[in-house]
Amino acid sequence: MKKSIVILSGGLDSTVCMSVAHSKGYELYPITFSYGQRHSREVEQAKKVAKYYSCARHLILDIGFFREIGASALTSQEIEVPTNRHIDDEIPLTYVPFRNAVFLSMAVGYAEAIGAEKIYIGVNALDYSGYPDCRPQFIKAFQEAVNLGSAAPQKGCPIAIETPLLSLTKAEIVKLGVKNGAPLHLTTSCYNGGEKACGICDSCQLRLKGFKEAGVEDPIDYEDYQQK
Amino acid sequence: MKKSIVILSGGLDSTVCMSVAHSKGYELYPITFSYGQRHSREVEQAKKVAKYYSCARHLILDIGFFREIGASALTSQEIEVPTNRHIDDEIPLTYVPFRNAVFLSMAVGYAEAIGAEKIYIGVNALDYSGYPDCRPQFIKAFQEAVNLGSAAPQKGCPIAIETPLLSLTKAEIVKLGVKNGAPLHLTTSCYNGGEKACGICDSCQLRLKGFKEAGVEDPIDYEDYQQK
Repeated sequence: MKKSIVILSGGLDSTVCMSVAHSKGYELYPITFSYGQRHSREVEQAKKVAKYYSCARHLILDIGFFREIGASALTSQEIEVPTNRHIDDEIPLTYVPFRNAVFLSMAVGYAEAIGAEKIYIGVNALDYSGYPDCRPQFIKAFQEAVNLGSAAPQKGCPIAIETPLLSLTKAEIVKLGVKNGAPLHLTTSCYNGGEKACGICDSCQLRLKGFKEAGVEDPIDYEDYQQK
Repeated sequence: MKKSIVILSGGLDSTVCMSVAHSKGYELYPITFSYGQRHSREVEQAKKVAKYYSCARHLILDIGFFREIGASALTSQEIEVPTNRHIDDEIPLTYVPFRNAVFLSMAVGYAEAIGAEKIYIGVNALDYSGYPDCRPQFIKAFQEAVNLGSAAPQKGCPIAIETPLLSLTKAEIVKLGVKNGAPLHLTTSCYNGGEKACGICDSCQLRLKGFKEAGVEDPIDYEDYQQK
């Protein structure tokens, strides 16, 4: 059975991404990063998703790095999490410096170590176009760095980065998850990380909008938002 | 004063690299990775080098990741450190999967956080041509990923990866260090990480050969090797 790494945050996108890798018949090796993000509740949800898919191993890495360097509303207590930000082409305050490159680099190292041929990552260029490390041109450049800088491809075993959600809308992601039987009830998206989702942060708003447009009821609980 | 990140292992190459950044007038922000390498004595030497250059901050990151995934003689107790390996175009057992990509990704994140414009890394394509992540084509591809995937370049603040040792021989590196007044006596290169260098591992042999060819006496102590 061929192996695939899945970068799994416990959020909606990475869980749907996991369902895509599962639907392709891969043996799943999820890797989850705990990095001092405000929504560290994600890690608990990621464990539930990995259990749902009966993964033999779930690698959880505590990297204090992003907390130490600060510089993002997601990892610093000094920067407020934005609400009602207009989604435009500015880089959001929740951008974590070069985060996806750090995640992908480690995923490639792990892929080399266990002989995996794919790395699934749920980046999406539409809803958060402000994140430079979610853009297709970044993924393409990083893939080139993988081809040239890791050992496996030199030995004839390429490692491919798969981004099945790259150009999907949030509504399309929800629909894809439903189609693949992804455990959407186990996911969390809220930046504030409470037991119930806040319903008002940027991430909650995008999620709710996606479910609404998909015509699917969001199975998770919200604090102060009534789904209509 | 302009800022520069220096990836500092405490070895000969990274210390000479540090001396190059210093000679260019940069304020130095060394970053050292502790990752379960056998030669963890390097980290202690890196601290001494950072102190030698009176750095305001020395970021030391403990990333257990490479130890957890194994797959290298440098981080696994199950794989023996090679001696007398013929330097050829095979990938050495001491290759740590995609290590330099992990290091560089974090260095870029740090550069974004503190507003540094350069990242110095002491990779060398000659002596260890077997490491795919030390090759110029990898560095070039990774630079492209940085340009496209990090926020600073989008805001008109490019971050450049500098590899001043890339095509130098070990003898030339030694000479450059001497010229720049690098604290070579504080460096360590031995894979076995004892108080004195073993003098027989691949890394010691390359170092000794370099000093010999440079006509410079190696200022560190060796266990069972007499310098001639």
